[in-house]
Amino acid sequence: MNRFADRIEQAQLAMGVAGVEAICLSVGSDLPYLTGYRAMALERVTMLIVPREGAPALVVPGLEAARVDVPDGVFSIVGWAETEDPIAIIDAILGDAATVALGDETWSRFLLQLQETNPGRTYRSASDLMSSLRIRKSSGEIDALRRAAQTVDSVVDEMAEVVFSGRSERDVSREIIDRAIANGHDSMDFWIVASGPNGASPHHEPGDRIIEHGDAVVVDFGGTQNGYRSDTTRMFVVGETPYGFDDAFEAVCAAQSSAVEHVRPGVTAASVDAVAREIIADAGYGDLFIHRTGHGIGMDTHEHPYLVEGNDQILKAGMAFSIEPGIYNPGEWGIRIEDIVVVTHDGVERLNRTERRYRVVT
Amino acid sequence: MNRFADRIEQAQLAMGVAGVEAICLSVGSDLPYLTGYRAMALERVTMLIVPREGAPALVVPGLEAARVDVPDGVFSIVGWAETEDPIAIIDAILGDAATVALGDETWSRFLLQLQETNPGRTYRSASDLMSSLRIRKSSGEIDALRRAAQTVDSVVDEMAEVVFSGRSERDVSREIIDRAIANGHDSMDFWIVASGPNGASPHHEPGDRIIEHGDAVVVDFGGTQNGYRSDTTRMFVVGETPYGFDDAFEAVCAAQSSAVEHVRPGVTAASVDAVAREIIADAGYGDLFIHRTGHGIGMDTHEHPYLVEGNDQILKAGMAFSIEPGIYNPGEWGIRIEDIVVVTHDGVERLNRTERRYRVVT
Repeated sequence: MNRFADRIEQAQLAMGVAGVEAICLSVGSDLPYLTGYRAMALERVTMLIVPREGAPALVVPGLEAARVDVPDGVFSIVGWAETEDPIAIIDAILGDAATVALGDETWSRFLLQLQETNPGRTYRSASDLMSSLRIRKSSGEIDALRRAAQTVDSVVDEMAEVVFSGRSERDVSREIIDRAIANGHDSMDFWIVASGPNGASPHHEPGDRIIEHGDAVVVDFGGTQNGYRSDTTRMFVVGETPYGFDDAFEAVCAAQSSAVEHVRPGVTAASVDAVAREIIADAGYGDLFIHRTGHGIGMDTHEHPYLVEGNDQILKAGMAFSIEPGIYNPGEWGIRIEDIVVVTHDGVERLNRTERRYRVVT
Repeated sequence: MNRFADRIEQAQLAMGVAGVEAICLSVGSDLPYLTGYRAMALERVTMLIVPREGAPALVVPGLEAARVDVPDGVFSIVGWAETEDPIAIIDAILGDAATVALGDETWSRFLLQLQETNPGRTYRSASDLMSSLRIRKSSGEIDALRRAAQTVDSVVDEMAEVVFSGRSERDVSREIIDRAIANGHDSMDFWIVASGPNGASPHHEPGDRIIEHGDAVVVDFGGTQNGYRSDTTRMFVVGETPYGFDDAFEAVCAAQSSAVEHVRPGVTAASVDAVAREIIADAGYGDLFIHRTGHGIGMDTHEHPYLVEGNDQILKAGMAFSIEPGIYNPGEWGIRIEDIVVVTHDGVERLNRTERRYRVVT
């Protein structure tokens, strides 16, 4: 049995438990997880309909049907022509299914059309159902995550030898993109280069700011390699650290390494967040750690489990996620250190292995 | 009044006509059209709520609030912390709004949560309402589209001097990306290099196939420059045309140029499609022209108006769209020629100006 047939069967078993009669998947990674095919995020709808029993059907724009490779005939293809109504086709395939789980990233436009076509049907999020399949990675998936992590690690090490001062954030980010592609990534998903005061914005978009002596620079980037994602953050300091940086850096470093060491099967996602948060709070920076400690990673950069207060999900072997505490000092600087880790049978494996210590660059 | 304040006022006027009490916008281009801010497409929801009167509110993850630049205070920012429920915040801001227009690309997950929180409220697509604002471009927007078109045109001319044979599609596509960025694009959105039989798949993804003598290659690519999109398609032939190509190429060329010449204020979108389709059908290739003739373009690569059978929308000055008929011969080759055009007060302006004739390369 190929892995897609196996995953579809697992999804169908999970549907029985969840009490849904069909799963509908469109844009996002749930669809390629089950079929190997990723939908184009365009106004022409693509939708996989997975029934409780039997083969799924992929409703796809006719002009994109030639892009679909069906592994061992595990699903059928229903192409729709430009003048046809794909919503009517999907509705007919759903038939008398009363409760349908819908992929999270499906465009609302299509959900509204489906609801209007058949107001009696109930839709709910497919997130819990699909994440129950995707959250524990196979050894093959962990290998893919490990290789993706090695690629960004090699870029971090290369960037330690690079001149930062006098260059724009955008220019440095473009070098990171080029190096990651050259080192093995198929594509890049994000590339944060946040210098000086811009570092205090965790999701800063690299811009025209010229990096200068005395800047701390948050470098956080990731991409896709063989369908799996990377994500790492390291600090670069131009010449010397800015005022107030050193003590905060030590706190982030301690929080990040202690949180990693805390990970093992049986502890909760929230407890990992608590370990990191307590160390940063005890050091006096609690109000400046303005985000959760981490997020799952796999075919998506952000997926379950989320390491956040209130998430009492128990960690199990095969779960993969980031551990990335930070301290953000508005108007001055930001600090974040991030590794991807995988829960093993008796502890944790760090997939990112570069030195946590900041790099001093020129 | 700045342009964002002006657009928000137009949206509020349109809401009265459409009978909706609020607009909710998340990922996609409607949000930056009204505010200058583009939401991150992640599991943390961002949502602009535009009421019928008064200033809109942007509900945004707290850690992303620093990314938002509010032009002249035309909207307020409501940051939500990691442990807060953003759906409850959005619901409270919507208050007693009974009918809400929702941006098409909003994740279904959030719509389902909003519907569960307040089952009495009615949601509908914001597409018609927002496209009524966005479909006719201002002179500034047309300038931006013109500059973006010039960038891809310069890449087309450069690629005519490049060796294709012996290289993979992926390798050629990467050169196109690099040249488009070097020539002025901020980012690339798609890059189709479809050689030989792969050309028969209109949305082919460039892969490992090695381009060889006698291949026809469909090159269709576009990106973003100052927030506006480009999109052009030209044919490259390696050495000599394949069997059956020449006559079909003449038909596509005639269909594309005749459709462009047909464009003027007052004709329907469908009539442009009909002009191209009739020429291709008369040449005997009707069954092989498997997609509509074109799509609107602006801040999105695909937006209204769509040039498709059944769309009786009247073209007006300022509308911008692609004209891209094609013939797809499965297992053999594909042909497409594409320009972006803008409807003027008395006719049409072609934004892409390179020769339609295929380039012979080595």
